[in-house]
Amino acid sequence: MDDGRDSSIDEQIGPVSARRAFLRSGTALAGGLAGASLTGSALAQSDAAAPWQLKPGAPAAPYGTRSRFEQAVRYPVKPFGDIAPGSGPAFTPIEALEGTITPNDLHFVRIHNGVPDIDPKQHRLLIHGMVDRPLVFTVDALLRYPMTSRTYFLECAGNSNRNLAAQPPQLPAGALHGLISCTEWTGVPLRMLLEEAGVKSGASWLLAEGADAASLSRSLPIEKGFDDTLVALYQNGERLRPEQGYPVRLLVPGWLGNTSVKWLRRVKVVDGPTQTKDETSKYTEPLPDGKALQFTFEMGVKSVITRPSSTMKLAGQGFHEISGIAWSGAGRIARVEVSADGGKTWRDAVLTGQDRPRAVARFRTGWDWRGQEAVLQSRATDEKGKVQPARQAWVAAYAPDIRFHNNSMVSWAVGADGSVKNVYA
Amino acid sequence: MDDGRDSSIDEQIGPVSARRAFLRSGTALAGGLAGASLTGSALAQSDAAAPWQLKPGAPAAPYGTRSRFEQAVRYPVKPFGDIAPGSGPAFTPIEALEGTITPNDLHFVRIHNGVPDIDPKQHRLLIHGMVDRPLVFTVDALLRYPMTSRTYFLECAGNSNRNLAAQPPQLPAGALHGLISCTEWTGVPLRMLLEEAGVKSGASWLLAEGADAASLSRSLPIEKGFDDTLVALYQNGERLRPEQGYPVRLLVPGWLGNTSVKWLRRVKVVDGPTQTKDETSKYTEPLPDGKALQFTFEMGVKSVITRPSSTMKLAGQGFHEISGIAWSGAGRIARVEVSADGGKTWRDAVLTGQDRPRAVARFRTGWDWRGQEAVLQSRATDEKGKVQPARQAWVAAYAPDIRFHNNSMVSWAVGADGSVKNVYA
Repeated sequence: MDDGRDSSIDEQIGPVSARRAFLRSGTALAGGLAGASLTGSALAQSDAAAPWQLKPGAPAAPYGTRSRFEQAVRYPVKPFGDIAPGSGPAFTPIEALEGTITPNDLHFVRIHNGVPDIDPKQHRLLIHGMVDRPLVFTVDALLRYPMTSRTYFLECAGNSNRNLAAQPPQLPAGALHGLISCTEWTGVPLRMLLEEAGVKSGASWLLAEGADAASLSRSLPIEKGFDDTLVALYQNGERLRPEQGYPVRLLVPGWLGNTSVKWLRRVKVVDGPTQTKDETSKYTEPLPDGKALQFTFEMGVKSVITRPSSTMKLAGQGFHEISGIAWSGAGRIARVEVSADGGKTWRDAVLTGQDRPRAVARFRTGWDWRGQEAVLQSRATDEKGKVQPARQAWVAAYAPDIRFHNNSMVSWAVGADGSVKNVYA
Repeated sequence: MDDGRDSSIDEQIGPVSARRAFLRSGTALAGGLAGASLTGSALAQSDAAAPWQLKPGAPAAPYGTRSRFEQAVRYPVKPFGDIAPGSGPAFTPIEALEGTITPNDLHFVRIHNGVPDIDPKQHRLLIHGMVDRPLVFTVDALLRYPMTSRTYFLECAGNSNRNLAAQPPQLPAGALHGLISCTEWTGVPLRMLLEEAGVKSGASWLLAEGADAASLSRSLPIEKGFDDTLVALYQNGERLRPEQGYPVRLLVPGWLGNTSVKWLRRVKVVDGPTQTKDETSKYTEPLPDGKALQFTFEMGVKSVITRPSSTMKLAGQGFHEISGIAWSGAGRIARVEVSADGGKTWRDAVLTGQDRPRAVARFRTGWDWRGQEAVLQSRATDEKGKVQPARQAWVAAYAPDIRFHNNSMVSWAVGADGSVKNVYA
């Protein structure tokens, strides 16, 4: 039966032999993993028609929606200290999702003065400053340019800073760590527009500014603009959503989320960082000596187990799949290890999507839970050899002054009753 | 500036040198491709604030939606001869999309008796027939199984049969060829469930049945069930949509769409094809001698240019990107060639996503339109060496008897006024 088999699925399923052992051991069936075995009348009954088989269903909608039985939404957790109208984050419910792609409906949002309702016919993108030819682009003009499509994560620099509270918040994984999403972006390489405008000698930085009421503005080294930065127009196949920068945004792969300026209205070529309000009053990282780090662009290597995760309860003993997401601003994920004993022992998880740099990879491994108390952890390593730090080490080095770039390991404690809690381990 | 550059983007942009030549030749600027060059007061004016910069925008929604300025919907084209309530196709507007992923909202739909509204708590999946242990699975039980995530296209066998009409319909590309979509699927390999049930010696086929009112049923060789077939639970990260089989469906990679039985309620292990109503009265392919082909599962290698495409109008002379999608049920796309002269000359397009077997790849190439009449075509080749056939050859071999599996080349005629029409070339 192996003729024509897609052999890579073996690897993607994970430690197949171990899982089959669970499945075949009787543990699985006895422990409630699986299908109940049926005989006689129970089998016949199971084949009876369900109510929805007895009458025609609804027609296909022109524009689809999800099942009324699925209700996961973004978590509107109040941010730390932001006070402008319409400012705040909305977290992706990562614990309700699987795979590597985030549906646009649930992509995290971070806004500083609300979501503008932009008419694409009126929107313009200006390329100016130290250029030979200042240029202004309509959206229709941008849509005629050569495009490329790549899958990239976006992560807010403030993701996981709720896990710096004195006591571990008992919230779902998404409300703690859900300022991370991953989608397929399509757009025009910024490099093409810069080359068309003609960058003058001596230019070294860019200023990117959004058309929201906050005019969110960030400085970027020009090298990144000539590297993999996109002027993005589509997300997961469709035009950008307003909350994601419609009609046009920057997408700066692997760098902190707000450098990917949404509702992009201008890119100014300059000879140094502009020190905008958004990078002096915010998004700097104070150090104990009173100085501050600035322009810490790259997001660190990180992972989080999404299933099981905090506030969930295990359905019973036996086989459980441990599943989570991992990413690194430095490139590809090379390895994710999982521990079920608070870091004493580790095993390698199986990865999906790890071939894409600066994208979310899914990791999975099997776990045979026999009712013991346990602490689940994951630890990611990227292709540059960077390893996700333990929480204690990260906190000792940076907290409480630094509230950004918390890429430390996440720990979920499983109780004897199967309840899962957020802990600092 | 090349330090740290992601060099693969060069390849993904396409024939960069050719495009830069366009951009730099003045053709682009003169021909209306690009940003308008600005000086003096025009430059200052272009930097004036837009209305949405002057007041705070809307808060982030718990569950997002698209811009009110984006209105693309699925095309509800009436099918050929189907008469059951709630039967028919809804086509993906492929001409409005970019990249390789189809958003779930716009994934094509083919239903035979409407979309059932299934309560996942009440739904069951039965594995029975020639097995050692008949098993019944709740959805919660399935959600505990080891999962894998893969990106696959789905295509209805009847896709493109509107292009078998006597005269080429003047419809958008999606209304003609939009029964194709591509998403990331996450689920349990069917193989795991079959192995748990224990397939008896002599078993050679499967019967898969849906829980819709049509009880759509298809026969599959058991080898495919042990290969890459998934019991899919998630699509693009979220749980399946009702129109896509919520809460659980088969996903049979590369094979005609209706073998990926939605709302999956049972898989019966049998020793031959079941010859269900859905494979005797439909989905067979009559031959001139009165016999019929049956169980022609694999979808052929195919491509279609989505931009520009029929019913569009080119905005002006100069640079245009020709962009489209290609796929093959036999594996990966190896090559897509594009012609702008009705097949006299061809050039290779640049591919994105061609590393994924049985998934949509995006192809793109630049085109310098000088106002001449033109016929645009694309021709895909897969990794098995199969080449998309010309329309005339396909029609001569199969039409009018066969109305499925039309993978022949698509031709768009560009008029001197820039209008794009569907033609048979």
